[in-house]
Amino acid sequence: MVLTNRQGVSISPDTREKVLAAARELGYRPNSSARAISTGRFGCAAIILSTKAYTSNLPMGLLDGIHDTLADNGMHLNISRLPDEKLIGPDALPKFLREQFVDGLLINYHYHIPETFLEKVREDRIPYVWINHQLDADCVYPDDFQAARYLTERFITRGHRRIAYFVYPASVHYSDADRRAGYKRAMDAGGLRSEIISYGADEISNAECMALLLGRFGAEDAPTAVVAYGPWPARALMQVALRLGRGGPDDLDVATFDDQVLEDCGRNIATAIIPQYAIGVRAVEMLRQKLEAPELLLAPQAIPYTFADGETSEITA
Amino acid sequence: MVLTNRQGVSISPDTREKVLAAARELGYRPNSSARAISTGRFGCAAIILSTKAYTSNLPMGLLDGIHDTLADNGMHLNISRLPDEKLIGPDALPKFLREQFVDGLLINYHYHIPETFLEKVREDRIPYVWINHQLDADCVYPDDFQAARYLTERFITRGHRRIAYFVYPASVHYSDADRRAGYKRAMDAGGLRSEIISYGADEISNAECMALLLGRFGAEDAPTAVVAYGPWPARALMQVALRLGRGGPDDLDVATFDDQVLEDCGRNIATAIIPQYAIGVRAVEMLRQKLEAPELLLAPQAIPYTFADGETSEITA
Repeated sequence: MVLTNRQGVSISPDTREKVLAAARELGYRPNSSARAISTGRFGCAAIILSTKAYTSNLPMGLLDGIHDTLADNGMHLNISRLPDEKLIGPDALPKFLREQFVDGLLINYHYHIPETFLEKVREDRIPYVWINHQLDADCVYPDDFQAARYLTERFITRGHRRIAYFVYPASVHYSDADRRAGYKRAMDAGGLRSEIISYGADEISNAECMALLLGRFGAEDAPTAVVAYGPWPARALMQVALRLGRGGPDDLDVATFDDQVLEDCGRNIATAIIPQYAIGVRAVEMLRQKLEAPELLLAPQAIPYTFADGETSEITA
Repeated sequence: MVLTNRQGVSISPDTREKVLAAARELGYRPNSSARAISTGRFGCAAIILSTKAYTSNLPMGLLDGIHDTLADNGMHLNISRLPDEKLIGPDALPKFLREQFVDGLLINYHYHIPETFLEKVREDRIPYVWINHQLDADCVYPDDFQAARYLTERFITRGHRRIAYFVYPASVHYSDADRRAGYKRAMDAGGLRSEIISYGADEISNAECMALLLGRFGAEDAPTAVVAYGPWPARALMQVALRLGRGGPDDLDVATFDDQVLEDCGRNIATAIIPQYAIGVRAVEMLRQKLEAPELLLAPQAIPYTFADGETSEITA
C-alpha cells in the first residue's frame, strides 16, 4: 500500500511524491502509471498458495485467465506460497503486501484452511478474492451443482434409468457435495432412485476399489450410466467396463468433470469442462472492485461450466 | 534494473539513494534489504510463459521449486505470459524488466520458439535461465536420456526381450528424441532389436491409434514390455492390454514418465518421476549465478529422475 492510507498506514504526500519522482527518473513507465498515481497502488496482485500438499491446485487455464486480465488492466502478477503461520500471524498479511509491493490477494487455498484465516484477512482489511472455495462473500468457483445436474439430466433424456454417482477417493472439497446434490436433484426430478457409490482412499486401496466396482457393475441391476467425480473415477469405470466386456457407450455410459475432454479412456468421455480461464477472469474483475471499494462485500460467483459431449449414444430402455 | 548500470542504463547514485530512502520511509523492509541495497536489485525474478497453447507447461512441482528457492533467497516471484512480439521486439525485454521491477528471467517456453528469441535475450544481456529446453548454455531440463535408458534396462534385467518404445501423438520436444535415444542405447547394449512405435496425431485419430495398437499387440511376436512416452500412450497401452485379455504385468509390462506414479490404469505403472521441484530449485540457483556474473555461461544441467516401481513382475523368457 505504498500510496494509500488504507490499512491504517499513514503516508505523507511528500513521501509518495518522492517515490514517484524517483521512479520517473529511473525511466519506470508502468502501463498504467496515470491510473496508479491517481489510485495510489503498486499495480500488482498476488496469487496465494498454501504450502500444504494438494490444497492449492493452480491449473494453467486459471493462471492464464488471472494473468491476462491483470495484464489487460496494467497490473503485474506475483505468486506466493505461504505456510499457515505466514497467513494468520499478527500483521502477517499487511506485512506481506508491503514487502512484496502487492495491492490485493487472489487466495487459491481449497482444503484444510486454518479456521482463523478468513477472520484474519477480514480483520486486516486485505482486499482479497477467494478462488474455488465457498464463502458468504468475495469468492468465485465453478458451478458444480448445475454441471452435475446437467450431466445427469442428459443421461435421463437419453433413456438411462439406473444412473449412479461415483467418487473415489472421497473428497472434502465443496465440489463433491455440490456435484452429489446436482445429481440428486436431477434424479429426484426424474422420479429416479439415486445411487451414490463412494469409497474413501483411507478405507480401501485402489485395487479394492476396482474389485468393488467389478462386483457392482457385473451385477444384473448394474447402473447403465455414471456421473464420475473426476478423471480418476472415470478411468476406473472405463477399465471396469473393458474388463466386463462392456467397453461401448451403449454398455456403460460415463460422464465426468475435468479441465478438458477426457479422451484417454479408449473413447472420449462426455465432460463438463471446468471454466478455469473464466474463473481467473472473474476473480480479477472482483479483486478490482474490492480495490476500488474495500468495504464492499461481493456476492459469491458460481461460474457456469461448458460441456463436451464425447462419444455416447441414446439408449432405448 | 533500478539500481545497477548493467544493461547500458546509466543510473546516478543520487537517484538510487532517493528510491531507497523513499522505500525506507514507507516502511518497506524486504527480507533481503541489506543484500538488495548492496547488489542493487529488485529482488524479483519472473517466470516467462508463452501465450501459445501447450508451449509453456508449468506444473505445480516446478512452480513450488522455483518459488521456494526464490523465497529462501528473499526474492519475489512474478509470472508473465507474453506473446512472441513482446519477447523479440526492439528493447522489449529490457523494458519488461524495468516495468515489472524484475531482475532476471526463468524462461518456461518449450516448443515453436521464435528463432530470434535466444539471440535477442543474449544481445540484450538479460540474465536468464531456460527451463525444459536444450541449449548450449544456461538451461536446465530433466535427464530424459538416462531415465529412458534406466526403464529399458530394468525391463531387460527382468527378462524381457521384445521391448518397444511408443509415442503418440508425435512430439517435437527434445524429450521424445532423448527418450528414444536412451531406449535405443539400452537395447543396443543388450544386443536387442529396437522397435519404435510412433504415430502423429495429424496423421491418425485416437481411435485409429487404438486400432493399430490392437493389431500390433495382438500379434504373435508382440512386445512384452513398452516404454511409453507419457500418460496418454501408457493409458492407451493398458486399454489395449485389457481388450486383449492381457491386463496383468506378466502379459504386457508398461513403464512411463510423469509427475507422479501413474496409478489410474488398473494397476500402478512403473514411472520415471519428472524431477519438477529439483528443476525449479536448480533454475533459481543458476539464475542467481547469472545475476552475480551476467557474462558467465553456465553449462546445461540435466537433472536426474527418480523412479517409482509400480506393480510389475519378473518374466522368465
